[in-house]
Amino acid sequence: MIVDSALYRDGSRVEAGGDCRSLRTQTSEPGDFVWVGLSDPSQQEIAEVADVFGLHPLAVEDAVKAHQRPKLERYEHMFFLVLKTLWYVDEQDAVETGEISIFAGHDFVVTVRHGQGNELHSARTQLESTPKVLRHGPGGVLYSIFDRVVDGYLAVADELVIDVDEIETSVFSPDRTNDSARIYTLKREIAEVRRAVMPLREPLGRFVAGTVAGVHQDAAPFFRDVADHLARVAETVDSLDGLLSTAFDAHVAQISVQQNDDMRKISAGAAIIVVPTLIAGIYGMNFEHMPELGWTYGYPFSLLLMGIVAGGLWVVFKKSGWL
Amino acid sequence: MIVDSALYRDGSRVEAGGDCRSLRTQTSEPGDFVWVGLSDPSQQEIAEVADVFGLHPLAVEDAVKAHQRPKLERYEHMFFLVLKTLWYVDEQDAVETGEISIFAGHDFVVTVRHGQGNELHSARTQLESTPKVLRHGPGGVLYSIFDRVVDGYLAVADELVIDVDEIETSVFSPDRTNDSARIYTLKREIAEVRRAVMPLREPLGRFVAGTVAGVHQDAAPFFRDVADHLARVAETVDSLDGLLSTAFDAHVAQISVQQNDDMRKISAGAAIIVVPTLIAGIYGMNFEHMPELGWTYGYPFSLLLMGIVAGGLWVVFKKSGWL
Amino acid sequence: MIVDSALYRDGSRVEAGGDCRSLRTQTSEPGDFVWVGLSDPSQQEIAEVADVFGLHPLAVEDAVKAHQRPKLERYEHMFFLVLKTLWYVDEQDAVETGEISIFAGHDFVVTVRHGQGNELHSARTQLESTPKVLRHGPGGVLYSIFDRVVDGYLAVADELVIDVDEIETSVFSPDRTNDSARIYTLKREIAEVRRAVMPLREPLGRFVAGTVAGVHQDAAPFFRDVADHLARVAETVDSLDGLLSTAFDAHVAQISVQQNDDMRKISAGAAIIVVPTLIAGIYGMNFEHMPELGWTYGYPFSLLLMGIVAGGLWVVFKKSGWL
Amino acid sequence: MIVDSALYRDGSRVEAGGDCRSLRTQTSEPGDFVWVGLSDPSQQEIAEVADVFGLHPLAVEDAVKAHQRPKLERYEHMFFLVLKTLWYVDEQDAVETGEISIFAGHDFVVTVRHGQGNELHSARTQLESTPKVLRHGPGGVLYSIFDRVVDGYLAVADELVIDVDEIETSVFSPDRTNDSARIYTLKREIAEVRRAVMPLREPLGRFVAGTVAGVHQDAAPFFRDVADHLARVAETVDSLDGLLSTAFDAHVAQISVQQNDDMRKISAGAAIIVVPTLIAGIYGMNFEHMPELGWTYGYPFSLLLMGIVAGGLWVVFKKSGWL
Amino acid sequence: MIVDSALYRDGSRVEAGGDCRSLRTQTSEPGDFVWVGLSDPSQQEIAEVADVFGLHPLAVEDAVKAHQRPKLERYEHMFFLVLKTLWYVDEQDAVETGEISIFAGHDFVVTVRHGQGNELHSARTQLESTPKVLRHGPGGVLYSIFDRVVDGYLAVADELVIDVDEIETSVFSPDRTNDSARIYTLKREIAEVRRAVMPLREPLGRFVAGTVAGVHQDAAPFFRDVADHLARVAETVDSLDGLLSTAFDAHVAQISVQQNDDMRKISAGAAIIVVPTLIAGIYGMNFEHMPELGWTYGYPFSLLLMGIVAGGLWVVFKKSGWL
Repeated sequence: MIVDSALYRDGSRVEAGGDCRSLRTQTSEPGDFVWVGLSDPSQQEIAEVADVFGLHPLAVEDAVKAHQRPKLERYEHMFFLVLKTLWYVDEQDAVETGEISIFAGHDFVVTVRHGQGNELHSARTQLESTPKVLRHGPGGVLYSIFDRVVDGYLAVADELVIDVDEIETSVFSPDRTNDSARIYTLKREIAEVRRAVMPLREPLGRFVAGTVAGVHQDAAPFFRDVADHLARVAETVDSLDGLLSTAFDAHVAQISVQQNDDMRKISAGAAIIVVPTLIAGIYGMNFEHMPELGWTYGYPFSLLLMGIVAGGLWVVFKKSGWL
Repeated sequence: MIVDSALYRDGSRVEAGGDCRSLRTQTSEPGDFVWVGLSDPSQQEIAEVADVFGLHPLAVEDAVKAHQRPKLERYEHMFFLVLKTLWYVDEQDAVETGEISIFAGHDFVVTVRHGQGNELHSARTQLESTPKVLRHGPGGVLYSIFDRVVDGYLAVADELVIDVDEIETSVFSPDRTNDSARIYTLKREIAEVRRAVMPLREPLGRFVAGTVAGVHQDAAPFFRDVADHLARVAETVDSLDGLLSTAFDAHVAQISVQQNDDMRKISAGAAIIVVPTLIAGIYGMNFEHMPELGWTYGYPFSLLLMGIVAGGLWVVFKKSGWL
Repeated sequence: MIVDSALYRDGSRVEAGGDCRSLRTQTSEPGDFVWVGLSDPSQQEIAEVADVFGLHPLAVEDAVKAHQRPKLERYEHMFFLVLKTLWYVDEQDAVETGEISIFAGHDFVVTVRHGQGNELHSARTQLESTPKVLRHGPGGVLYSIFDRVVDGYLAVADELVIDVDEIETSVFSPDRTNDSARIYTLKREIAEVRRAVMPLREPLGRFVAGTVAGVHQDAAPFFRDVADHLARVAETVDSLDGLLSTAFDAHVAQISVQQNDDMRKISAGAAIIVVPTLIAGIYGMNFEHMPELGWTYGYPFSLLLMGIVAGGLWVVFKKSGWL
Repeated sequence: MIVDSALYRDGSRVEAGGDCRSLRTQTSEPGDFVWVGLSDPSQQEIAEVADVFGLHPLAVEDAVKAHQRPKLERYEHMFFLVLKTLWYVDEQDAVETGEISIFAGHDFVVTVRHGQGNELHSARTQLESTPKVLRHGPGGVLYSIFDRVVDGYLAVADELVIDVDEIETSVFSPDRTNDSARIYTLKREIAEVRRAVMPLREPLGRFVAGTVAGVHQDAAPFFRDVADHLARVAETVDSLDGLLSTAFDAHVAQISVQQNDDMRKISAGAAIIVVPTLIAGIYGMNFEHMPELGWTYGYPFSLLLMGIVAGGLWVVFKKSGWL
Repeated sequence: MIVDSALYRDGSRVEAGGDCRSLRTQTSEPGDFVWVGLSDPSQQEIAEVADVFGLHPLAVEDAVKAHQRPKLERYEHMFFLVLKTLWYVDEQDAVETGEISIFAGHDFVVTVRHGQGNELHSARTQLESTPKVLRHGPGGVLYSIFDRVVDGYLAVADELVIDVDEIETSVFSPDRTNDSARIYTLKREIAEVRRAVMPLREPLGRFVAGTVAGVHQDAAPFFRDVADHLARVAETVDSLDGLLSTAFDAHVAQISVQQNDDMRKISAGAAIIVVPTLIAGIYGMNFEHMPELGWTYGYPFSLLLMGIVAGGLWVVFKKSGWL
């Protein structure tokens, strides 16, 4: 589906109408460029756009298929960029991923979105209100999208920090918690975030270094700003992964400690029952000469004795921390 | 065994007949090349082919012996490439490996297959129907084989993802499962996949950089596409390996938790038997003055008492989560 | 808030008065520079300063927002440096972090502090009493701040060494201690220190190499001194992290050893009760011909027998280390 | 001890007789070279040889002392190479190490062997029968020794693969095995193999790159072949080390699982004894009105009841997998 | 304290007397140099020496303060080197560290020692007896000190190997040993050795490469020899660290195995007591018709029965490896 397509001239949108082919023919002055936005395009839609802008077939195939790794590929007159978008779904405590493919030449940008996420729409809206950035042409568009996408990463990283804090609280709570499944799931999601973030560093570095043809040298500080955010996400994610590993080990240690506590509690309880049983056994012996057996209050005495012994054991175990 | 040998000219197969020696003599125009396909060749077969195309003895030795590491070696007028093929055998949940050795010069390609796998046959069939690629000569053939082989890796990686998902489900199921053997086996297979995939990255990178003599610069984007798939396999495999390690740790934690649960269950059960035993012991004492012993319903009363105590304990343990 | 602003000429403070705009206009001779110190500045304050010194908007944004990674960014006529400050709060055994952003050009330094910490004030005081360093201009100011900040790191590292020593003592003490939470917390703080320290190495390296424009080559040995301290912090922190991991493993091993000891102690205790119970059971049997039952001292004899057996078991278990 | 010394000319051994000093004087034509083989030489023997060929004193000291790391050192007119030899002793399941030091100049090779291993003798024998390689001079000798030594590594790696397979079988067998000592020993041996193999890669790489003076460029493919085998050993050894770590973890998991199984088995067994004890306790109570006590077959009935209860428990536990 | 100071000319000590200032004035011929040896110098002593030889204040500060990292710093006319010395104290099984700071220019060497260790004295003694090395001037002195210090590392590494062997024996002995504290301590010492050894590699590499001004190119093989020993220490230490980790894991596994063995032993012991208790309970039942109760030898029979059952269980458990 073609979501939006427009001609931009000197930092503002030109209401030119028509399909992308006619739009491109209208790029007459230097700095003019067309931005076509596609969303889960059909084979035919992408084919037409590819034809208009002369996109490389391999890149087009990648843009259609989705499930690509983040990457930057240079072709003769254009480059092709794949970004992963990330967002956090609160209801499921899960990280979802989408994909944006971008073709950019000196006078056009074609963006292809897979999955949900409105980074592209909001990037376009914001750009159209900041002519200063828009005047940078395709480079400005790229910066704007990068900025949105990486802001999304930061938001996800913040949510993951909260999740790790929760797990931490749970692990060290005195309650019996089984956190291993949750830690596993979170580690899995962190791995997913890492797969989106890590391969992006190298391409972004090329924008920062200003070695991508068609992107103006002046834009470098802006890309550096995005790269800095990306580095922050990467550091956070690495740090969380390490913390989760430590939390997991602590969780296992807690299980051992609890088992030890339980064992001692059980043993103390057993002693409190077994010692009176021994006393009952003694008064159940059949000796002819057992003075207590003839006592009028022998029976209550024996029960009292059991009670005192059991109580005494209870006190002893309580004091020594076994109960 | 010589599987197939043919002369290719201008993107299509020339029905020229004859053995490979005669085929080679027929390569008259620039771009002509001979493709000889061998499968588990005898010493004699390979010797003849080596003689016709002037293959380096060390490379020939490697091609015959199999069990080589993936590698790319340059000789004066040819290069020698070893690839590992991978496929997944559903019946055994196992990854199998084969090997393809390729000798390529400016006017010939000699492919040697060890083990099963029909990457070579299908590559040839498909190439013969796409003259555009075939016209690239030996470079096109190489691309086509690389593409097939790496597609095979992707398929294996997908199967491994499923296996890891299954293990994950098993580890976190409430059932008592002993997953360590399965995790071990899977880790072993992942190591095998890694041995096929990792050493291939460097040679493939040389094709992408276009520094392999005899392979046209224009082919670089195609090799880059294959390299991208290879990187995806490598990332998946690394990620799975990490997940398996985490899953294994979680499995060990689950064992501990279950042991703890069992211990508490057992202790609760023991208490339910031991307390009535104490009561029986008490009424088995031989005191002369034990009023209950003379009661008409003393016996049923004692049994009832045992039942009530046992039942009470059962309720208490049930509520506190020990049973 | 503007904390302090002054004009420096030839190594000493010029009592020139006025706001930073008027101060800057007074920089007439080469080597003159203005140092403006801000603390958690309002949007308006920073805007004015930015206007006076021509600070880059992206850097200004970073300086206002705080929570940046340590970094060094070069702009055309200035550079922008972000440092994390660290200090140890004894009451909470916790490491706290602050942030200092520094803009520096050939004739000005603007420092922005977030959070507590008086590195900037003490750096200014000390500098004003050492004209030799102050004469180096903005480079001297930078060195002085770097020196203070890294000295703060060294102090924190020393405190962490003490914390690890305490944990070590606790882990290997014969007492039952649950150190996992404390180890976890310390690992978390070490990760925080690392996030402050590690990214600083690269920018500091650039000062050491003397490749930062506007900082005099002669200052290199001084920056090398700071870099050396930073390396010491980094090494200490890495080493502590490794020790903590080992201490954690040892802690888990101690738990296992204790559980084993407990189990044997419990078993020995159980035997001491259960064997007399068997004896009582035997003398509770109803055989007609049991000579002991008729003995005058049969009952005391049986009790004595139980006592001897229990005492004997106690001695045996004591000797074999089970009790 | 001087094992063998000979003059080689144009690919074959010249029966020239005499000690090494006289042999060297006979090297008249280009390509002539002397090969002196020493085994655990005395201080005096090596001193004489060093004098004849002008060996550097530091290299000579290393060659005498043994226990060197594998290394390649260049001196003005010669180079010095240290190799570790490895072999597997079946009786002890252990890897043994020896050492070969090689001095080589344009017209001589001096080899010094420490420990057992006959790589040098067999290398000489084989070389003397392949004049083609021998004609390469000292470079050919080096290649031949390298080839032998690395073949020895491959043989050791194959044995280690078998050992790991055995451990794997043992770990996952249902038997109670204590594999940790064996895994430890094997890890230790793998570390030893690694110490022989890893430092060799860099020097061998220099031969492959053809940057070692005095070794002919044409020999590069041969050295590349050896380097390839070395890489295979390195990969195998790394892979085995990883597998052993995983196997060890699985072993620990198996211990836990077995402990759990044992605990449940024991508990079930205890229940089968304790429940009849309760029944006996009940019929041991002294109530006046217990109808069963008067029954003629009360006693067999009670025994039967105990038997049924015990049998019933046995069935229940068997079915639920506790026994 | 000034330990020794002397003027050296052409490889031998010149008995020139006087303090270091007068000694320096006597360096008249090229190759002459003064070597001043200080030990824990006072502020004043070092100040005077610094003044005589023009030492850089920052380096002097480092030399006085001690607790520096090993490093090599170049100043205009001199360089400054910090080395850690290590030795093993048998009584405490502990590694102790000292520190040597060296200032060297073309005509002087100033060595400052902190802590014990007589590397400097023995280096001077030996040098004075080998004029060949001494003739190299300050470079020769440096080599000699490096050689001593690294020999000290080798000695410490050998002691650590013995310690690890002892731990290994202890871990795998059938005795109950608690090795975790010892392994921890050893790991801590290995970390200390590593902190002395690792940072030295880079500076030593510069001497090997011959890029340190004032050190003669001819000395490179000697420094290479030292670097080789350093590499051996580094490898040994890394390898020991890995072995200790594995030994620790094995230790934990042994604890688990022992716990399992104990549990089974305890259970078997419990069964041997509990089953006779059941028999006693049976003959304690109050049925009117229990033929055994009337038998003349009923009581001994019952005891015999208990004995046989207990003995039988003992045999069964012994055979199945539970006892």
